[in-house]
Amino acid sequence: MNPGRLIGVGVGPGDPDLLTLKAVRALKNADVVAHFAKAGNASNARGIARQFFRPGLTELPLLYPITTEQPAGDPEYQSVIQGFFDEAATAVAAHLGAGRTVAVLSEGDPLFFGSYMHLHVRLMKHYPTDVIPGVTGMSGCWSAAGLPIVQGDDVLTVLPGTLDEAELTRRFRQNDPTVVMKVGRNLPKLRRALIAADRLAHAIYVERGTTEEERLMPLIEKKDDSAPYFAIVLVAGRWWKP
Amino acid sequence: MNPGRLIGVGVGPGDPDLLTLKAVRALKNADVVAHFAKAGNASNARGIARQFFRPGLTELPLLYPITTEQPAGDPEYQSVIQGFFDEAATAVAAHLGAGRTVAVLSEGDPLFFGSYMHLHVRLMKHYPTDVIPGVTGMSGCWSAAGLPIVQGDDVLTVLPGTLDEAELTRRFRQNDPTVVMKVGRNLPKLRRALIAADRLAHAIYVERGTTEEERLMPLIEKKDDSAPYFAIVLVAGRWWKP
Repeated sequence: MNPGRLIGVGVGPGDPDLLTLKAVRALKNADVVAHFAKAGNASNARGIARQFFRPGLTELPLLYPITTEQPAGDPEYQSVIQGFFDEAATAVAAHLGAGRTVAVLSEGDPLFFGSYMHLHVRLMKHYPTDVIPGVTGMSGCWSAAGLPIVQGDDVLTVLPGTLDEAELTRRFRQNDPTVVMKVGRNLPKLRRALIAADRLAHAIYVERGTTEEERLMPLIEKKDDSAPYFAIVLVAGRWWKP
Repeated sequence: MNPGRLIGVGVGPGDPDLLTLKAVRALKNADVVAHFAKAGNASNARGIARQFFRPGLTELPLLYPITTEQPAGDPEYQSVIQGFFDEAATAVAAHLGAGRTVAVLSEGDPLFFGSYMHLHVRLMKHYPTDVIPGVTGMSGCWSAAGLPIVQGDDVLTVLPGTLDEAELTRRFRQNDPTVVMKVGRNLPKLRRALIAADRLAHAIYVERGTTEEERLMPLIEKKDDSAPYFAIVLVAGRWWKP
């Protein structure tokens, strides 16, 4: 029997209309659709894409055993998470080995901070693999904000908010247009680093960009410290007048 | 009369199947579709999207008066190019003022190094404006290469190849996963900077990513210096084994 095909499918930033034609076709043709979520939570990617699932589709939920945000450098966290990705790859491989096409949903783009890549690196040498790129969360957010993020000779920096405060400050001081991913509980630290680099006035906070629950405001006007993990902060270049 | 709506439409990296559902709908509903090209050249964005044009659509080509790549800092170049964007905005505004919806095509994403932004900043205060994000050229390229570009606490740097060699070298030495846009005639300089930063072995060259003319190879295996302006070089993180 020929093995099935592994397809990483980017489902875009949140609005189901931001799936590509190619992603929609891949979902309609897949035998199995796999999606990651924290145990006890609904998968965001599934919520975006489910209107394109065909009736009778087999779903394969891949549930993270860890429900809080952990420092990536913690060895115990790394051991648990790598074991989880090994098990997820085994579960996907069982379908591929039986000749079934498996589409793995990714919010945004599959190879840009996506969980899909952990399956990709484990399975790409053993099974035929395609990656369907998607609109990233950051593109969705700067489009919602109407903010030209980079032009001409600009350099774009994309940072995870999980970096430590000194490194965040150093990066903000480079004065590049900057996107901060993974905001969540890192928001107070981000604010301090932006103030230290004199860039707070150029920062825009975007939560659930492109969805009906979108919230968007100058960061300086946000009065509380609560933010979802997937919130994004856009820091415009010096030339931008907010 | 109500003014028409200005819509920046990302048409993605090259494969027409990578338009979003929202972009296709915007093209079907537009009264006018505008597209940028160098004088004498066909518009790449038009080539990607034209199968979605409705019959009888009005097209508005916006033709750059300058056909060679110029240093962005040159005052004469700036004067000519800003004058061109002023005229282009006036041409678009004439349609908007007459109540017609104008979709402006952008390769990749409209606000990410796109010409659309020059219309956006000139017209957004005077007309209702939407931006439909698109799959970027860089997402198309790293998906074609099957390269997980960033994960965990990685920082992504996106550089234009037009930077000078010392600055390119300094940026490459930061060891971030890096995307180099606008390769073209900058390729020999890029090679020297990658060698100086000891990162040439991690670089992947991608030309016309996601199209039928796609060419993709380790940069170290590319023997000539010829590259289209829109070619991209992906420099993987240190953890990646090519």
